[in-house]
Amino acid sequence: METEKNTRKLDRKDILGIKELSVEEINLILETADSFLEVSTREIKKVPTLRGKTVINLFYEASTRTRTSFEIAGKRLSADTVNITASTSSVVKGETLIDTARNLESMNPDIIVIRHSAAGAPHILARVLKQSIINAGDGAHEHPTQALLDMMTIKSKKGAIAGLKVAITGDIAHSRVARSNIHGLTKMGARVFLAGPATMMPYGMEKMGVTVAGRIEEAIEDADVVMALRIQTEREKQCIFPSLREYAAHFSLNKRNIGLARKDVMIMHPGPVNRGVEISPDLADSASSVILEQVTNGVAVRMALLYLLAGSGNA
Amino acid sequence: METEKNTRKLDRKDILGIKELSVEEINLILETADSFLEVSTREIKKVPTLRGKTVINLFYEASTRTRTSFEIAGKRLSADTVNITASTSSVVKGETLIDTARNLESMNPDIIVIRHSAAGAPHILARVLKQSIINAGDGAHEHPTQALLDMMTIKSKKGAIAGLKVAITGDIAHSRVARSNIHGLTKMGARVFLAGPATMMPYGMEKMGVTVAGRIEEAIEDADVVMALRIQTEREKQCIFPSLREYAAHFSLNKRNIGLARKDVMIMHPGPVNRGVEISPDLADSASSVILEQVTNGVAVRMALLYLLAGSGNA
Amino acid sequence: METEKNTRKLDRKDILGIKELSVEEINLILETADSFLEVSTREIKKVPTLRGKTVINLFYEASTRTRTSFEIAGKRLSADTVNITASTSSVVKGETLIDTARNLESMNPDIIVIRHSAAGAPHILARVLKQSIINAGDGAHEHPTQALLDMMTIKSKKGAIAGLKVAITGDIAHSRVARSNIHGLTKMGARVFLAGPATMMPYGMEKMGVTVAGRIEEAIEDADVVMALRIQTEREKQCIFPSLREYAAHFSLNKRNIGLARKDVMIMHPGPVNRGVEISPDLADSASSVILEQVTNGVAVRMALLYLLAGSGNA
Repeated sequence: METEKNTRKLDRKDILGIKELSVEEINLILETADSFLEVSTREIKKVPTLRGKTVINLFYEASTRTRTSFEIAGKRLSADTVNITASTSSVVKGETLIDTARNLESMNPDIIVIRHSAAGAPHILARVLKQSIINAGDGAHEHPTQALLDMMTIKSKKGAIAGLKVAITGDIAHSRVARSNIHGLTKMGARVFLAGPATMMPYGMEKMGVTVAGRIEEAIEDADVVMALRIQTEREKQCIFPSLREYAAHFSLNKRNIGLARKDVMIMHPGPVNRGVEISPDLADSASSVILEQVTNGVAVRMALLYLLAGSGNA
Repeated sequence: METEKNTRKLDRKDILGIKELSVEEINLILETADSFLEVSTREIKKVPTLRGKTVINLFYEASTRTRTSFEIAGKRLSADTVNITASTSSVVKGETLIDTARNLESMNPDIIVIRHSAAGAPHILARVLKQSIINAGDGAHEHPTQALLDMMTIKSKKGAIAGLKVAITGDIAHSRVARSNIHGLTKMGARVFLAGPATMMPYGMEKMGVTVAGRIEEAIEDADVVMALRIQTEREKQCIFPSLREYAAHFSLNKRNIGLARKDVMIMHPGPVNRGVEISPDLADSASSVILEQVTNGVAVRMALLYLLAGSGNA
Repeated sequence: METEKNTRKLDRKDILGIKELSVEEINLILETADSFLEVSTREIKKVPTLRGKTVINLFYEASTRTRTSFEIAGKRLSADTVNITASTSSVVKGETLIDTARNLESMNPDIIVIRHSAAGAPHILARVLKQSIINAGDGAHEHPTQALLDMMTIKSKKGAIAGLKVAITGDIAHSRVARSNIHGLTKMGARVFLAGPATMMPYGMEKMGVTVAGRIEEAIEDADVVMALRIQTEREKQCIFPSLREYAAHFSLNKRNIGLARKDVMIMHPGPVNRGVEISPDLADSASSVILEQVTNGVAVRMALLYLLAGSGNA
């Protein structure tokens, strides 16, 4: 393991999106993540890899799982982790994002992990700062670490991604998870089908190399993987869809419609799950669900990225 | 010390309440805490005991002292500590407590410390998760680490708990501190007297093995220990009592009524103190007050629990 | 470096303000900071100096840069750092500042860093607690670590502070940064000129050994250093000045008025900058601006103070 990790390097400063990653880079990240998976199951879950490195988690949007996952990943690599959340930050004092970033840069961190409601915010930081930037979700644009952990989960269960049929269902329009996964899965050779309410399906998705299904059943049929996206219930009042109930009636994954998929179908969800909305409770807890493996792999993927960016002589 | 710690183990996964702990278990915890007390007074306040262990502090209610106490306890044992507070967590996104917990579980922590406004929340987690759960306060139910630090404080000052008269005064009905202490102190052989306004005294407390005093003077008379509970002033508007002033006039501990107790009476309070409400300022700062020793012992008790659950080959 | 650091000590428990520091003390702090500056540029940015020490950051006011700077400083010295912010603290439960402090004291931290909206809050803590207190900003009173990092920045660029002309412009009345810098810079032998709107200039500033300029041009003329203070835009509604636009028209630093200063003038700002208000964007980003060096030096100054108070056998 050590040998492999020390000889192959990621030749980029930042992880901003899956769009710009090559198949080789994705494979390197997934293999590195595989090798870190075991650290979290040891008696002593800690390696000295990033001792003396500083990782700043700069979160402009609330998040439990992603921030905690990055924080745990950093700590298990022995990095110093510093959390900054918008509510306690100087953004309330009217400082620009770039000024905040330059200030953090001046404290000599090694990596800044940023989540921001504005698409492109991490890219601005990456252009301006000498440090490595990891996009932890920017608006409805990309969420690359989520797609990487999703691909890691698929690969570990199915052996390979190429040739699989993957259905992504729900609110495609507002989902950075969908966008990152579409980039990644098509690159890796999967056939991706999208299904969702018309108001949640952007025009021209076919240009991304996917098939837009007329009905959810068409997407699910013979699928190897079905990934339900989160409905942001706080958007309900914006009238994108009439009611959660109506959404659930047509687009919830359940024991009935999942019967159309392959017997060994994997059911995925980026979380947090609205039970009974995107997915029926029994299905979320079924043997087909890999929702919790996704979370476990998330820590490993983030350890891999922190290591590849800051720990392999790259930073 | 090391020998003793390594040979005796706590044979349980979780610390949910004092109710289910045996006298032997309480003694083991208190003795282990005694041995950790000294760590916090060293030049280098840190032992490698829990290196590579992850402790998550999951707080659904605001808290300075308890969260900080657990965080310091974890850090002095070299554990990686991660704080999650409700205001920044995905609870705002509508995820169920169990889903949140299962997600955290999937990141392979060793211990989850939880405070929640709902009685029983830690028990749900304990049933569902393979990790150790420590209840840091659940609704009006239990606050076991508070009772353990209270018992540690009493034992260190009085030598033993058995045979002592302990008065607990104030809002018994809403106090998890009272409930945990009643379980613990009666188990350990103390005679417990309760006193408080009728609206704050639940029916049938005698079944817990305590005496409900008609007047506060009856509870205090000849007491070895008097423990004043916190009045949650934010409840005043709920009309449980007419005014803080009236409460103080009848139930505040002061130099006058404390004269009824034994000369060497110990005065305790779980904090934060509303000075002039539960206790007069001069008494809170008097030589009889052990309020700050309670806080010091709190760190030691929490170190002991983290150690016994995660560090003694138990986890 | 080690020799020097081990032989000279700061003979005080707390850092509450620049007013009470001697020139020798300021020089010791600045020299110690210089020696720590290099740690943050190493491959492994961490020294074991404060291993097993506990530093509590107790922030009653929002702050990104100062809290983060202290946290990074503590972590790079291997201290355990614990953050407490007012919004999640027991202050909401009505506890007094002294009681909160005494409680923290009882958990045996080594240093408490406090920011508070009330002038004098750190001084109360310093009197009551045995631990070292560092003032991270108290009301409009002092912000000593800011002045120290400012002096460090001036000294590193100009070689010495004595004899320099320093202009401080803007909201003098509400600025703890101004007050601390006036104390420090005059002590170190600089000639300090103040300029700002009449409503923002307290009477009798001359008693502090400075010159109050009638017009901003008078302050800037031939200045070696120009320090623009932050306008707290949230105060605008209090009618201290008619509008940001009007303020900017008269008091913003820009390419034009800065032409009056010396060719090698240094432009400083404590941040966060309101671009176009206190300082024009082109000037903030010009070669004359040392705003980001100030931030870098901030980490070094805070490392120095943590070290001098807790790490040199002083604590």
